[in-house]
Amino acid sequence: MTEHLVVVGGDAAGMSAAAQARRLRGPERLRITAFERGHFSSYSACGIPYWVGGDVPERDALIARTPEQHRAQGIDLLMRTEVVELDLDRRRVRSRDLEDGSEAWTGFDQLVIGTGAEPVRPPLPGFDAPGVHGVQTLDEGQALLRTLERDCRRAVVVGGGYIGIEMAEAMVRRGLDVTVVHRAPEPMSTLDPDMGRLVREAMEGMGMEVVPGAEAKEVLLGPDGRPRAVVSSAGEHPADVVVLGLGVRPRTELARAAGLPLGESGGLRTEDTMRVRGQEGIWAGGDCVEVLDQVSGRYRHIALGTHANKQGRVIGINLGGGSAVFPGVVGTAVSKVCALEIARTGLKEREAEAAGLAYESAVIEATSRAGYYPGAAPMTVKMTAERGSGRMLGLQIVGREGAAKRVDIGAVALTAGMTVDQVVSLDLGYAPPFSPVWDPVQVAARRLL
Amino acid sequence: MTEHLVVVGGDAAGMSAAAQARRLRGPERLRITAFERGHFSSYSACGIPYWVGGDVPERDALIARTPEQHRAQGIDLLMRTEVVELDLDRRRVRSRDLEDGSEAWTGFDQLVIGTGAEPVRPPLPGFDAPGVHGVQTLDEGQALLRTLERDCRRAVVVGGGYIGIEMAEAMVRRGLDVTVVHRAPEPMSTLDPDMGRLVREAMEGMGMEVVPGAEAKEVLLGPDGRPRAVVSSAGEHPADVVVLGLGVRPRTELARAAGLPLGESGGLRTEDTMRVRGQEGIWAGGDCVEVLDQVSGRYRHIALGTHANKQGRVIGINLGGGSAVFPGVVGTAVSKVCALEIARTGLKEREAEAAGLAYESAVIEATSRAGYYPGAAPMTVKMTAERGSGRMLGLQIVGREGAAKRVDIGAVALTAGMTVDQVVSLDLGYAPPFSPVWDPVQVAARRLL
Repeated sequence: MTEHLVVVGGDAAGMSAAAQARRLRGPERLRITAFERGHFSSYSACGIPYWVGGDVPERDALIARTPEQHRAQGIDLLMRTEVVELDLDRRRVRSRDLEDGSEAWTGFDQLVIGTGAEPVRPPLPGFDAPGVHGVQTLDEGQALLRTLERDCRRAVVVGGGYIGIEMAEAMVRRGLDVTVVHRAPEPMSTLDPDMGRLVREAMEGMGMEVVPGAEAKEVLLGPDGRPRAVVSSAGEHPADVVVLGLGVRPRTELARAAGLPLGESGGLRTEDTMRVRGQEGIWAGGDCVEVLDQVSGRYRHIALGTHANKQGRVIGINLGGGSAVFPGVVGTAVSKVCALEIARTGLKEREAEAAGLAYESAVIEATSRAGYYPGAAPMTVKMTAERGSGRMLGLQIVGREGAAKRVDIGAVALTAGMTVDQVVSLDLGYAPPFSPVWDPVQVAARRLL
Repeated sequence: MTEHLVVVGGDAAGMSAAAQARRLRGPERLRITAFERGHFSSYSACGIPYWVGGDVPERDALIARTPEQHRAQGIDLLMRTEVVELDLDRRRVRSRDLEDGSEAWTGFDQLVIGTGAEPVRPPLPGFDAPGVHGVQTLDEGQALLRTLERDCRRAVVVGGGYIGIEMAEAMVRRGLDVTVVHRAPEPMSTLDPDMGRLVREAMEGMGMEVVPGAEAKEVLLGPDGRPRAVVSSAGEHPADVVVLGLGVRPRTELARAAGLPLGESGGLRTEDTMRVRGQEGIWAGGDCVEVLDQVSGRYRHIALGTHANKQGRVIGINLGGGSAVFPGVVGTAVSKVCALEIARTGLKEREAEAAGLAYESAVIEATSRAGYYPGAAPMTVKMTAERGSGRMLGLQIVGREGAAKRVDIGAVALTAGMTVDQVVSLDLGYAPPFSPVWDPVQVAARRLL
């Protein structure tokens, strides 16, 4: 029997699922139809800041697989075609061709929902004007680049999280004066404030203006209908272009309308097989789902390409007759703003508190290589552990070259439920060009003991 | 009661133990005497290749703590004073002042043995001539630098392990023509031969001559009594200077003479508290001990500063009234030869075989960053796992910038006993400047599945 798999959303999760399922089940056993409303399939949204900033010269470099490549694998991928309704009772989806407006129903046996996320765009005056840009899709990146072709000298980035700081870097690299306006006391509020302060100070040292504790109110427009300033609770910030870095939220209107289970974040709830809870033959992955935080035991929404790819693979294996699970995440994230590397995994202090855990933290400074080795770069490492049990809870790193990926040590240790004592004993790679004799992560663990 | 702690050997393990014990027990409760036969205390032997090569301009940069600094902490450190006998029955050591030849007995309540390792120097003609250098101590590094002040143009490095390749790099950086003569089919025999081949090819690409499968026979001397060539089973290799990179063996003659338990490697056997097996008040750490390989369950000799420091800390805590253990190692090592990074952890295939394990391996190529991000550098990753259980057994990486320290992911996973499946699911740091969307280690794990 040939089953029909319908995939809604042609990016990381959906197309990973489709490609993996195709590898395991040939066209005679599985027909695959995928719908993508945009102009591009399977691309790296995480790469958009580096394309906008000019590090990546070509948009097409961000595309992992074109529609043609997917079709050559026997996946019928319909571009510029938006799914506008999920009819779960009759096992069919209604789609609309965005070019000619025509609609059609397509039946399915298995459904994968990979509708992604959308940038938070505050419902405030001026925020929907041209020249105010989200950067979640290639189409949005392209629109921003078109704006930058105009005479832009001053950029205001609204939001100080990952997208905010990465876009601040991109604007600096394009030669603009950059102001980052954000609500929290420090940028990068996925870190504790003491670590976020290091990020702010470094950004200021790079010539950016950072305005903390500022609620955005309005984008003031010039006579051409384009931004001339952003008004926040902290004042008026001149701007020729405005970039939104307010984070994203799961794009789950379709799922909600179809009565599928959503969590508090608005993301779809799934089993660890990535099947939507309680639904036979309905799967979901990527930026539209919630994930289990293995450290706190709670569900969170984390939009990250690496999770989308892993979840897609799990769906594809399960659709292909195999058996795989996505056990959850530990909250790892790495980023950079120019030469400053930023990383975190596990729980920050407020998250530990919210999870009802008693904790202790230690903050240390160390270097990426042996202190005497050329290029040894400073980093600050903060480790948090549960009081009593000594179980590691979180790790945060801010530093220069060689800092960020050290967080993987913490990510694996958290997954294994290691204590700080066990971290101190880890047999990590040591040689002077790569690490001090005690890895900075272990220096933090020692301090914590 | 004031106890008397005697430390034999003033480098990493011994002085870490002394310093840690001192922090926990003041001079009124613990008197500490340490003996060091050399001119230097607490230095980074691992840094010697980079000092010889010129990356580290000053010898003193390698010294973590001078004798004066130790003395200021209340540790009575006697330099150029060699312990020549351990009298365990009468709880005393006999020492000799290497300047004036005088001898003395010193009683102890607690004894720490940190006598280190010595370079293997084959008992072959010419190998003890001036101009043939081991590089295990600062004194030896200094002697090599004096030789290099002469008109040296051709260096032969005997041995293709860590010290061999690091010294080959050092000689290249000093502008010498370099030949590396070694016995195994490929250099870096701590890797599988297919990975070692990548190292050889890279070294050849750097202009080094690599002579595999060659047994050293003799150093031919010129009329000045200095090397003119090394003779191996593969021919005659012209040399103005010869560097020994044949590895090291534990320096345990004193311990052997005192009847202390040694393992097959000649290293001291200890409990996980680092107390010498079955001996009250006798402790040992660093390059003179064997360590438990947590993956194979066997004991091995691994000379590495990071282990010495960790073991010294454990000894010091236990001496200070606390309780700590050194649980063993997983065999992690990172190194580089010029721009080529090399890393391994766990068991290579032959070691898995020797441990009686059925295994599978996978080898993949990936990049250090997202493929489209500037500076994405290629790396080859090999993962080995137990057949059936899927337990990860080993990880080997050869690549460019950003390759080596990824081995830490494997080191932590091995320590936790993770399966390949669990490695695929790990929440590792992802952003385009730091990693492809699947970390190379996970790409290898996927291939293995």
